[in-house]
Amino acid sequence: MRAEIITIGDEILIGQIVDTNSAYLASELNKIGVSVYQITSVQDDRTHILEALSAAESRVELVLITGGLGPTKDDITKRTLCEYLGDTLVEDPGVLAHVEYLFRTHLKRPVTELNRQQALVPSRATVLPNQHGTAPGMWLQGKRAVLVSLPGVPYEMKELFREQVAPRITTAFRRPVLLHQTLITYGMGESTIAERLESWEDALPPHMKLAYLPNLGKVRLRLSARGEDPNELRAELAARISSLKDLISDILYGEEDGAPLEVSLCDRFVAKKATLATAESFTGGAIASLLCSVPGASAYFTGSVVSYATGVKTRVLGVPQALVDTHTVVSAEVARAMAEGVRKLMQTDYALATTGNAGPTKGESDAPVGTVYLAVAGPEGTEVHPFSMGGHRERVVQKSVNKALEILWREIGRFDPARE
Amino acid sequence: MRAEIITIGDEILIGQIVDTNSAYLASELNKIGVSVYQITSVQDDRTHILEALSAAESRVELVLITGGLGPTKDDITKRTLCEYLGDTLVEDPGVLAHVEYLFRTHLKRPVTELNRQQALVPSRATVLPNQHGTAPGMWLQGKRAVLVSLPGVPYEMKELFREQVAPRITTAFRRPVLLHQTLITYGMGESTIAERLESWEDALPPHMKLAYLPNLGKVRLRLSARGEDPNELRAELAARISSLKDLISDILYGEEDGAPLEVSLCDRFVAKKATLATAESFTGGAIASLLCSVPGASAYFTGSVVSYATGVKTRVLGVPQALVDTHTVVSAEVARAMAEGVRKLMQTDYALATTGNAGPTKGESDAPVGTVYLAVAGPEGTEVHPFSMGGHRERVVQKSVNKALEILWREIGRFDPARE
Repeated sequence: MRAEIITIGDEILIGQIVDTNSAYLASELNKIGVSVYQITSVQDDRTHILEALSAAESRVELVLITGGLGPTKDDITKRTLCEYLGDTLVEDPGVLAHVEYLFRTHLKRPVTELNRQQALVPSRATVLPNQHGTAPGMWLQGKRAVLVSLPGVPYEMKELFREQVAPRITTAFRRPVLLHQTLITYGMGESTIAERLESWEDALPPHMKLAYLPNLGKVRLRLSARGEDPNELRAELAARISSLKDLISDILYGEEDGAPLEVSLCDRFVAKKATLATAESFTGGAIASLLCSVPGASAYFTGSVVSYATGVKTRVLGVPQALVDTHTVVSAEVARAMAEGVRKLMQTDYALATTGNAGPTKGESDAPVGTVYLAVAGPEGTEVHPFSMGGHRERVVQKSVNKALEILWREIGRFDPARE
Repeated sequence: MRAEIITIGDEILIGQIVDTNSAYLASELNKIGVSVYQITSVQDDRTHILEALSAAESRVELVLITGGLGPTKDDITKRTLCEYLGDTLVEDPGVLAHVEYLFRTHLKRPVTELNRQQALVPSRATVLPNQHGTAPGMWLQGKRAVLVSLPGVPYEMKELFREQVAPRITTAFRRPVLLHQTLITYGMGESTIAERLESWEDALPPHMKLAYLPNLGKVRLRLSARGEDPNELRAELAARISSLKDLISDILYGEEDGAPLEVSLCDRFVAKKATLATAESFTGGAIASLLCSVPGASAYFTGSVVSYATGVKTRVLGVPQALVDTHTVVSAEVARAMAEGVRKLMQTDYALATTGNAGPTKGESDAPVGTVYLAVAGPEGTEVHPFSMGGHRERVVQKSVNKALEILWREIGRFDPARE
């Protein structure tokens, strides 16, 4: 069972927006056993869309189309789908009533002529009502494949997919079982791991595949299995993962439960009833912001002091000025004092502090660009981890955020609430 | 002059990563007058890559390929390019020396056999040396188009493109001039603006095009022009933009100079020698983190207190407990006290505070999900802006960050340093 995704819109092709819709759809399709064969981004152009539809239909059983439905896009997707299938547009009373309702309650004025056209749908389409916007989704039988058209606005598209498209796919198509399990390693390069795993990998059966996903200091190893019987496949996957773990025990950091690390971290802190605060210098709140993106984070995350200016480190966090004078702001000593200072200020069990030089210039410290100190203060004391993260600003911050989460993950793993 | 982008890698098709490379390339190609006709993401698969190459070459003059060059990918891109063009792989002494150098200096061990293979390149390729990694870029004459292969690691790809590929493109191809200018509006929906601009839009010459880019409360209007003579085109674009501005003066918020708002904001604050701090509740440091992502932000941005827990609001920011008890944490009064508190604590000219309920549950306050207060304290006093941002957590935060930057932009625009 294979699908393709076609995104329609010049804004992707001129690089004005990043195509996050396709990543979402690919990931969700994968979860329900649908492989994505190709993703194609095409222009708001009739001929181009016709070509892409025909090519996709020749390869797969399901084609998801996003975008091209906005009121100012001349409804290019709907008109082109009609042309492609020899269908005509008809006004859908349900969609019209919904558009009128949205205008009445949210915009307090009558429906514009352009928006009224959003109630037009191909006569043979099954309309998928869009609670959050004026453009509905559509499910259509194409020439060979099923064609599904969704709006390009991410949160409208996501809800429509989750609530209406995914259930229809699971009913309409027979799909194989597709399972993935991902191990996280750090401290060793992709090619060195690959050499170590060569014979293990060669012994994998054809329906299993190992992928190496390197990213800023860590390499994730994703083992995928495809089959018919979910229980059999799960057991098979577990056995291979177990033998894989034995081979990489020295670099294994953890297992990915599908959830990003900030979510697992939240779960661990909440389960152990421990609290956390951060003091961030060059990371500028990026760690706090990531931790807060998880619903429920308020149960363990108290807050942060973003101390971009040195004065904030001394005045708010209580870092002694003498320490700054002796060691500069980018030093293990200042990182330690920041962590201990914010732990005291926020009255938490744990505190994490960052200080470093992300570049592009050296700033107030003599430390070379890429020098980073991460400190964790906890019930057992404070540990400082020094790093040299290279010279690319955005990367230094991103790598440091990842590292900080990893360090917290290990720290909280060791925390025994009964002992406190 | 048209190009296509092909990205190779299962990780995009299973939704494990978002394809930011294509957005970067599309945007950079556009700047040098190259239109991107299509972006195609294909699997790590020989047949699929061959199909995509052949299809792209039939449509455009330049094909950029990213990915498929990692040491564990079996060098699929290089081998497939050789097969496609009837070429063979040869060891490039320069690349080999660079790989050996990277291993010697960074990894302190001999080159692995897998990494040695990264020195293999098609015999007819022009090698584009990659300073930051082991896989070089390649520039090849295809059957009809020029084929350029780049590594998939974003910062390696970006530097290779900027330093080596873009200059080669400008030399090798005759390109039209392509200019864009973008106006930012807020407070009116896409379709209502479109109705107002209908006759203005209809009067545009065929080589000019207006695009509507709605995003969380604002609509950007991008006018594009394509031609031969840059000076003539620039004058023509300026004239149309000027008449467009007259039509939307009531909703015009500003002009996009290509730079994101956080960059323009940094420039404005630095130019006026004003300083800023933030106190963030539900935004959790997202505003601070965005402001700090701009190199040079330390010249005006002092820091932030992320006060996720109510105790931090009272203890660190000095919000009176009585205010919280009377009005709850999600209130105009608390937002005001937070802004004034952090302004005093950080000793800045301006301070911005956020408090709100991003959901999914109501939390400590009775305020409905989506209720947001943004307060700005400045030399002239404090203003509080109430919003109702809907019920989608991620969106509430993102919209609030955008709004906060807009509010700061207007405030700092009014600031007269001479008067202080």
